[in-house]
Amino acid sequence: MTAIPYRSALIIGAGSGISASLARVLRSAGLSVVVAARDVEKLSPLVDETAAFALPVDASDAKQVERLFVETDALIGSPEVVIYNASGRVRGPIAELDPSEVEKAVAVSALGAFYAVQQAARRMLPAGKGAILLTGATAGVKGFANSAPFAMGKFALRGLAQSAARELAPKGIHVAHVVVDGAVRSKLRPDPNESPDSTLDPDAIAQSYVDLLRQHRSAWSWEIEVRPWGERF
Amino acid sequence: MTAIPYRSALIIGAGSGISASLARVLRSAGLSVVVAARDVEKLSPLVDETAAFALPVDASDAKQVERLFVETDALIGSPEVVIYNASGRVRGPIAELDPSEVEKAVAVSALGAFYAVQQAARRMLPAGKGAILLTGATAGVKGFANSAPFAMGKFALRGLAQSAARELAPKGIHVAHVVVDGAVRSKLRPDPNESPDSTLDPDAIAQSYVDLLRQHRSAWSWEIEVRPWGERF
Amino acid sequence: MTAIPYRSALIIGAGSGISASLARVLRSAGLSVVVAARDVEKLSPLVDETAAFALPVDASDAKQVERLFVETDALIGSPEVVIYNASGRVRGPIAELDPSEVEKAVAVSALGAFYAVQQAARRMLPAGKGAILLTGATAGVKGFANSAPFAMGKFALRGLAQSAARELAPKGIHVAHVVVDGAVRSKLRPDPNESPDSTLDPDAIAQSYVDLLRQHRSAWSWEIEVRPWGERF
Amino acid sequence: MTAIPYRSALIIGAGSGISASLARVLRSAGLSVVVAARDVEKLSPLVDETAAFALPVDASDAKQVERLFVETDALIGSPEVVIYNASGRVRGPIAELDPSEVEKAVAVSALGAFYAVQQAARRMLPAGKGAILLTGATAGVKGFANSAPFAMGKFALRGLAQSAARELAPKGIHVAHVVVDGAVRSKLRPDPNESPDSTLDPDAIAQSYVDLLRQHRSAWSWEIEVRPWGERF
Repeated sequence: MTAIPYRSALIIGAGSGISASLARVLRSAGLSVVVAARDVEKLSPLVDETAAFALPVDASDAKQVERLFVETDALIGSPEVVIYNASGRVRGPIAELDPSEVEKAVAVSALGAFYAVQQAARRMLPAGKGAILLTGATAGVKGFANSAPFAMGKFALRGLAQSAARELAPKGIHVAHVVVDGAVRSKLRPDPNESPDSTLDPDAIAQSYVDLLRQHRSAWSWEIEVRPWGERF
Repeated sequence: MTAIPYRSALIIGAGSGISASLARVLRSAGLSVVVAARDVEKLSPLVDETAAFALPVDASDAKQVERLFVETDALIGSPEVVIYNASGRVRGPIAELDPSEVEKAVAVSALGAFYAVQQAARRMLPAGKGAILLTGATAGVKGFANSAPFAMGKFALRGLAQSAARELAPKGIHVAHVVVDGAVRSKLRPDPNESPDSTLDPDAIAQSYVDLLRQHRSAWSWEIEVRPWGERF
Repeated sequence: MTAIPYRSALIIGAGSGISASLARVLRSAGLSVVVAARDVEKLSPLVDETAAFALPVDASDAKQVERLFVETDALIGSPEVVIYNASGRVRGPIAELDPSEVEKAVAVSALGAFYAVQQAARRMLPAGKGAILLTGATAGVKGFANSAPFAMGKFALRGLAQSAARELAPKGIHVAHVVVDGAVRSKLRPDPNESPDSTLDPDAIAQSYVDLLRQHRSAWSWEIEVRPWGERF
Repeated sequence: MTAIPYRSALIIGAGSGISASLARVLRSAGLSVVVAARDVEKLSPLVDETAAFALPVDASDAKQVERLFVETDALIGSPEVVIYNASGRVRGPIAELDPSEVEKAVAVSALGAFYAVQQAARRMLPAGKGAILLTGATAGVKGFANSAPFAMGKFALRGLAQSAARELAPKGIHVAHVVVDGAVRSKLRPDPNESPDSTLDPDAIAQSYVDLLRQHRSAWSWEIEVRPWGERF
């Protein structure tokens, strides 16, 4: 089994779900890891467990994302893997939404990803090597009613991912978009006993990210989706 | 041939191309029309020709879009047709783009459309009737290299369109997204003699918008694309 | 309003729904029309009503399709419009289906369309003009459970349509695929009173075919979908 | 790293490329393997190398596919993994193709896959466990000019895969479709020196099949695509 061919990773939008699983599996594989989130206090248990570094960032702010990368460079060197896992969501009928909340949601889901991809590209292009993984959602391929802002943000993220893959893959940078289709289980949302594995195990999702990182450049995927076996789609 | 079942239209992002053709054809069909653009001076010839009204708007500003609708209400009544035709575009390698220009591009292509759809929905929902047409591009279904901001904006627009269609169609509002695939001909970009109709005639595009407006609610399209006969796709 | 720029049409898979509406609207527009179906007796009322010609064909048989075109040539000249509206459907769990019925379903939905497109292309290419419209279904873009044969046939039809559009459009032949998403109303399946227009009116569908036929070659659509306003999608 | 949770595999359409790589990697992982092809003689070297079993089959013949599964049952027990890797291809302008060759191409690409999925489902459903992997191509998502039969077959295969995934995944059977986008390297088509890894390494493709087999049921993919890093898409 091929090892992950990268030494360092920056995970943006870290929380207790997919990001935590990613931090664990990448640390076990020997990578240096920085996890970044708005509320860095919440990351303490993960930091204690994995010896990852934690940095604060509001991903919707270009300057903060730039600073995050500079600080990451100092801590673990230029990250060879960058994972963007933040998203902004506001639900409700179109007529009733607050425009400023819509702007914020799109900024977190999509503009923040752009800032991260840009910073990543600037570091990876000279090396001709790196991987950028973007966490998408079903909302990025199907726009649901009463969820326009999330659809806008996740569609935009997918457009960014596809454009970046077309631009950066021929320069040695693997860009991939992971469509997470379904509810991710957590302490707050445990897997239902009567319907086992009907929610996504974050460790199982993280494994697919690892599979992407291990793909040979002659057979890269730019997109995969993952969903529970019983999920209607 | 069925008539267009609407009396008034607001066209946002009006210029000399698709919007002008739309203004002409909707005026000939007897609708009252407001055209809106950042530079309202440029609309003078169109206003003279069609007796449409012209109003200024920066579509990336929620307040201005709100004011535009209020002014439109006063001029022609609540618009029963709203067409969003503005887009923001900045090209270049991801590593070299200016983040503030990216934000602006996404705001014009997608957030402005949201503001317009919201204002339209607020007016059309009580009537249980109306049509919202959004001008998309190939970039909304395929993210090209060196064009990430346009892909982000147009993907987001498509997500908005699909979400809005799912939400508003069952309430009597026809939402449709038109994928314009190819170069639109204009005075500056005439159709090449050696390859006739290899560019999109804006009048021909406008005809497909009219066809959408005339569709019976038992057989609505939420998306169509139009491209020149010889266009590679 | 532009007239339909064609003089003759062959409609294959004619029954009482979409095909009958098409025959009526094309006849009213002045085209000569041949309708073809396995059971030509059933077409008598339509023939009486529209003065279209009726010919028998089993569309899953290449020889019969070839003969149909020869007979059509004799009756109305080479058809400038060819519409394929036949489909084969067998439902059930994959494990329980009869392979020979699956073969038959795919043959009617997809192979028959190929035979028709081929015969049409041979006639239209020398003229550099013509239109080929293929009736698809949601099953052609989404494969539902317990409906594998219909998914196979309709996906194949869509692949044919897209390939044919790429090949024949630059030669002046408009190929389009119409995704009919929902139940088509009929005498046997009337529109429910409590939910008006929740089924597709075949006349409304036919209007979209006419719109396609009237598109200018600088702005052709290769695919549209139509669905009732309240349809979940 | 999780082991492959299956004990036996049947690979249909085996040749020297993807199938051979799959046979090797599955044999190394300890699975019993049957490889099946029309010309079983060609499989001798692979059989000698991997100690897989070889059986003859014309996959376009339902009876032969049925017999193949019976013989496989006898050799290695009911296969827990079934991989369909056969495809039929005939190229040329639509007007010039031989209908019987088109039928054959669709039969090999799509009907044969149906027969295999059906036989697999019958064996896997009682166990509530199994994996069915179908080898697709770009032609299954994009219909190219002068390649209608391949588009028809591969679109149909994708429709089958999606329908089967929706039907069988909730019953414990993982169905996945792999879009191979690009040329697969081989002795006859070596990777170009001046453009390394611009062709797909069959071992790299096979690794993605293995990744699919190792996915936890809470996060299954029904489709992935793989392409060389420099491939235009």
